[in-house]
Amino acid sequence: MKIITTIKEIREALKKERKKSKTIGFIPTMGCLHEGHLALMRRARKDCDVVVVSIFVNPTQFGPSEDFEAYPRDLKKDAEMAEEVGVDYIFAPAIKEMYPRECLTYVNIGKITEVLCGAHRPSHFRGVATVVSKLFNIVQPNFAYFGEKDYQQLMVIKRMAEDLNLDIRIVGILTVREEDGLAMSSRNKYLNPKERKAALVLSKSLKLAERMVKNGEKNLKTVKEAMTKLIEKEPLVDLEYLAICDSISLKDLLEIKGKVLVALAAKVGKTRLIDNIILEGD
Amino acid sequence: MKIITTIKEIREALKKERKKSKTIGFIPTMGCLHEGHLALMRRARKDCDVVVVSIFVNPTQFGPSEDFEAYPRDLKKDAEMAEEVGVDYIFAPAIKEMYPRECLTYVNIGKITEVLCGAHRPSHFRGVATVVSKLFNIVQPNFAYFGEKDYQQLMVIKRMAEDLNLDIRIVGILTVREEDGLAMSSRNKYLNPKERKAALVLSKSLKLAERMVKNGEKNLKTVKEAMTKLIEKEPLVDLEYLAICDSISLKDLLEIKGKVLVALAAKVGKTRLIDNIILEGD
Repeated sequence: MKIITTIKEIREALKKERKKSKTIGFIPTMGCLHEGHLALMRRARKDCDVVVVSIFVNPTQFGPSEDFEAYPRDLKKDAEMAEEVGVDYIFAPAIKEMYPRECLTYVNIGKITEVLCGAHRPSHFRGVATVVSKLFNIVQPNFAYFGEKDYQQLMVIKRMAEDLNLDIRIVGILTVREEDGLAMSSRNKYLNPKERKAALVLSKSLKLAERMVKNGEKNLKTVKEAMTKLIEKEPLVDLEYLAICDSISLKDLLEIKGKVLVALAAKVGKTRLIDNIILEGD
Repeated sequence: MKIITTIKEIREALKKERKKSKTIGFIPTMGCLHEGHLALMRRARKDCDVVVVSIFVNPTQFGPSEDFEAYPRDLKKDAEMAEEVGVDYIFAPAIKEMYPRECLTYVNIGKITEVLCGAHRPSHFRGVATVVSKLFNIVQPNFAYFGEKDYQQLMVIKRMAEDLNLDIRIVGILTVREEDGLAMSSRNKYLNPKERKAALVLSKSLKLAERMVKNGEKNLKTVKEAMTKLIEKEPLVDLEYLAICDSISLKDLLEIKGKVLVALAAKVGKTRLIDNIILEGD
């Protein structure tokens, strides 16, 4: 495995691979890798000849009061984990390499970024879409892998790829969870033991929704109320949003219809966590 | 020369060329080709193994009161002209092929789109940058050619390419003019004989600026006033803007300093024309 920090070098290395007609699989990450990331890498390893992982904590997707500075960074450990699952290249550029001067160009996706996390993090998806565009143009992969834990992000990238005619297949991979159900996230590191325990109520509330729908509940307001009630019992957890919506348009639904996304964000102590589940009506 | 109308086909054809390690030169146009376009194609023919021209009148770069419907279209004649200069592929998609459903994704370039034409055509450059992004992703060229007649557009595309790390060299080509000095433009077709004659004052005013600066005039306000006076003598010409600015940042200048862009837009009868010249101080 090679660790590369400049755009010029990664381009040259991948140009050689492409000349040999190798397919390239790409996983953009902010590092602090966990089993969720590794699942994406393992899938890329299966699908593609060459697997590229980027590690870049992208400043433009953090809001001014968010955790850009505090975001955990550990390239050495990340590299070990990536190598173990067979990654070929890590691209880990410095901020100046990615943004050598003021970036005047942004990729904006409308509508589906105005709800859920987008409603609470105003320029977040603009930052994500722009840096992913940049990374796509640098790596020029055939396949790119994103976790369903960040479901809205996955939908935003899919829509961008379709609207801008990217020649890249965007692949979503199931959320990986801890044994007790907590969705894997780099931000779980922030939780103290009490918060870690309290955070469990998020995945529990999603499972409650799943159970209610399985048992025939059609009224999504009823489902939301039951979830909210469960979450509110946990004093360390402060719900930011809870939405039940169409899994493609991300528009709110009142009745279950086709594939439905149940998504939530909450502060656990000072840590903002998100989770979601896809349910299907009959 | 092949005329291709679907994204799938042009992608497949160019994939084969790339496999043979051919370099691809690309000229995006809205058709109604003239000598200005042909100059771009001849240069691409010189630089590259394969020359691709797109012909697509892009609705998203026209304002609601602009000439999208009236814009001249003549694919047959365009194809003859392109073939004559050695173009290999014309990509001429229908609107539904480029925009099969609502496009939620837009590429926005800040600052340099807020002046000159951008100030008078609010979503024009957003439409241009987005459709050029789409075409770039479809054609995946090594080189792309743009006329300096649309100087601001050239700067916007160059900035986009830099900011988004496009692996494409953006090449600007000198404005081609009629013998009497009028800049070539598809919209010149709209002019009746009187208007055609009146339009000449635009290039004449640019030449006046050039002469004044050559003769040592440093005060750009004086240059602007002389140009405006000349243009105002022509009753059929209605000046929209006249700017003298830095050729990179497009910021207004008061004194000549390095490379300076003199740019203008005017209505001649109902036809909006633009023209510009680059001047250099000592």
